[in-house]
This record gives sequence, C-alpha cells and structure tokens, in this order.
Amino acid sequence: MPYGDAMATRTRSEERRAEIVRAALEVIAERGYRGASLAAVAERVGLTQQGLLHHFPTKEALLVAVLRERDQWDALPGAGWRADLLVSLVEYNAMRPGIIQTFSALLGESVTEGHPAREFFTRRYTTVRADMAAALRAEYGERLPSGLTPERAAPLLVAVMDGLQYQWLLDPESVDMAAAFRDFLTLLGED
Amino acid sequence: MPYGDAMATRTRSEERRAEIVRAALEVIAERGYRGASLAAVAERVGLTQQGLLHHFPTKEALLVAVLRERDQWDALPGAGWRADLLVSLVEYNAMRPGIIQTFSALLGESVTEGHPAREFFTRRYTTVRADMAAALRAEYGERLPSGLTPERAAPLLVAVMDGLQYQWLLDPESVDMAAAFRDFLTLLGED
Repeated sequence: MPYGDAMATRTRSEERRAEIVRAALEVIAERGYRGASLAAVAERVGLTQQGLLHHFPTKEALLVAVLRERDQWDALPGAGWRADLLVSLVEYNAMRPGIIQTFSALLGESVTEGHPAREFFTRRYTTVRADMAAALRAEYGERLPSGLTPERAAPLLVAVMDGLQYQWLLDPESVDMAAAFRDFLTLLGED
Repeated sequence: MPYGDAMATRTRSEERRAEIVRAALEVIAERGYRGASLAAVAERVGLTQQGLLHHFPTKEALLVAVLRERDQWDALPGAGWRADLLVSLVEYNAMRPGIIQTFSALLGESVTEGHPAREFFTRRYTTVRADMAAALRAEYGERLPSGLTPERAAPLLVAVMDGLQYQWLLDPESVDMAAAFRDFLTLLGED
C-alpha cells in the first residue's frame, strides 16, 4: 500500500474509533454502566458487534478509551489547574452520573488481579497526583496554609474526590458531593 | 418438626454459614477477589458447589456476608470510636490487601444498576457517616478545630479512607495509606 493510502487508512480508522467512543459515551449517559453493552454501542454506530470488536477487542478496552477521552475534555490530568476549578469539576460531575458511575465501577474492577484497566488507572493516578502537586505548589509554594507539602496534599485531594463519588452514587439525596469537596478545600487552607 | 428440633436446625445452619464465611475470608486472603470463586470456597468447607448455593445463592451474597463479618470484628460501624483508633485501622488494613481489595471491588460494582450489594453499601455508608459524626462530636463537640461540624467532617473522613484504598491497591509502593490518613486527621485538627 502506498504511504498516502496507509495514512488515509489510519486516519479513517482513528475517526471510526473516535466515533465509537462518542457513541459509547452517549449510551453510558442514557443507560449507565451495565446498559452500555458492546451490542448497544455497535448498533448506535451502525456496526456489527464483530465490526466493533475490530476497533475495541473488549468492553473494558472501549471503556478505558471513553475515560481517556473524558480526561482530555476535562484537561485532567493537566497543567494550569487551580483548586477552585476543581470545585467546578466536581459540580459538573454531579450532573453526569453515567460517566462517573462508569469511572467508579471500572476503578473498582481494576484493583482485581490481571484486570485490563489496571495499568490505565495506575498510570492515571501517578500522573494526577503529580499534576495536583504541581498545581498546589504553583498556588501555595512549598507549604499549604494547613502545613502540608503539595506532595502530601495531592493524594488526599484525589482520594476525597473519588471517595465522595461512591457515597454520592449510592445515595445522591444524602450526599452533596460539591459541598463536601468545598469543605475539604477549606481544610487544605483554600479561602 | 418439634420446636427444639427447628431451633437446632437453625443453629446448625447458622454455624454452617459462619464456617463458610470464615472459609471465604481465608480464600480471599490467599487468592484475592477473583480467585475467591464459589467452587474454591465450597472445596475448602467440604461442600459441593450446589451445597454452598443452598447457603449463599450468589458470590455477591457470600462476599457481602464476609464484609458484614469484617465490620463486626472491626467494630465498624460502631460506638466508641476515636480518630486515633482509625489510624490503627488503616494501618491494619494495609496488612490485609485481600479483604480491602474485595471491599473496593464490590463497592465499585455496587454503584451499577440493580447490583445485589448496592443496598448493603448504601445502608453501611448511612450508618458509618452517622457513627463517625457521633464519634467526632464526642471528641470535639459541635465544631472540630478546623471549624467543620461533625456531620460535615464525617463524609470526608469516609471518602479519604476509601479513596486512599484504591490508590494503594493500584500502587502500594507509591502510596503510604496510613501516613496519608494521618495527614488528613491533622487537617481535621487532630493532634
């Protein structure tokens, strides 16, 4: 195959993958984690299930692609964070239970032996902790008002976000995720 | 069946269930969440898989029974907590990855639609948050040193414990769960 054709093929394949990921996100938003079957996603993009498997060999691979895409839209992990922007992110998350449920369910599965999403989450947390620490350092320097270093505050910030999501998903009437997260930022020393 | 015989039958059945739960905990400790199949647990207690299903109709039902039993041993949720005892609990948890992995994986699954463990976790969090708030009130009164009320600090305390477990399970070399939890208690105002 001439070089140009190979490029065109790759691009078409990438476009197709992106289309599948968007369709999966829609199906997740509508039907939740369990409803987002490969069959439902294939139908949405007009592929057979076999055709879909050509692009994503397993449901887990597709879900990881969805979570990667979400991280890109949220610019997370990324530079230029500020703690107050994280509050907006948590408020935004409270309006999209489907993707938060998918994240939380897949994170839960990923801690089991040999799970295909384990590497994604392990790397993601390494990066997110480092980016959070860098953002906190840019805002506060070597010590937060609470006395913690950015490196010691970062895993707590991530843990609170994740942990509150489980409590909120199980009982949205009782748990105000954004208010609780603001309380945590107050503890860290945010005004 | 005379009353006494019915009682004896119930007691034997309860003893059998307790034996199965202990066996499941052993299998979890040795082989982790995925390795803890009903077949493996049945073999350990000398039952057929069919015999085991008589006591626990699904793997989820058995795992919920294991987590309930663990909560009883940990006296969690329960009265008489103190924040410093929670540090000991987190240190202890860092020595038993099997049960923490089981808790975290099942919690992740439980947020999906119609999951059999959903009610267990929803109730557990309601109780744990209330008990944590009561313990914080007994220690600090209506305001913690950080200014938060016990009711607003409790969900954060729970979220940090759960969230740190995921980070630790994925990357035990990088995440010191007990040290991070102590940092959080410092934020709350614990000496």
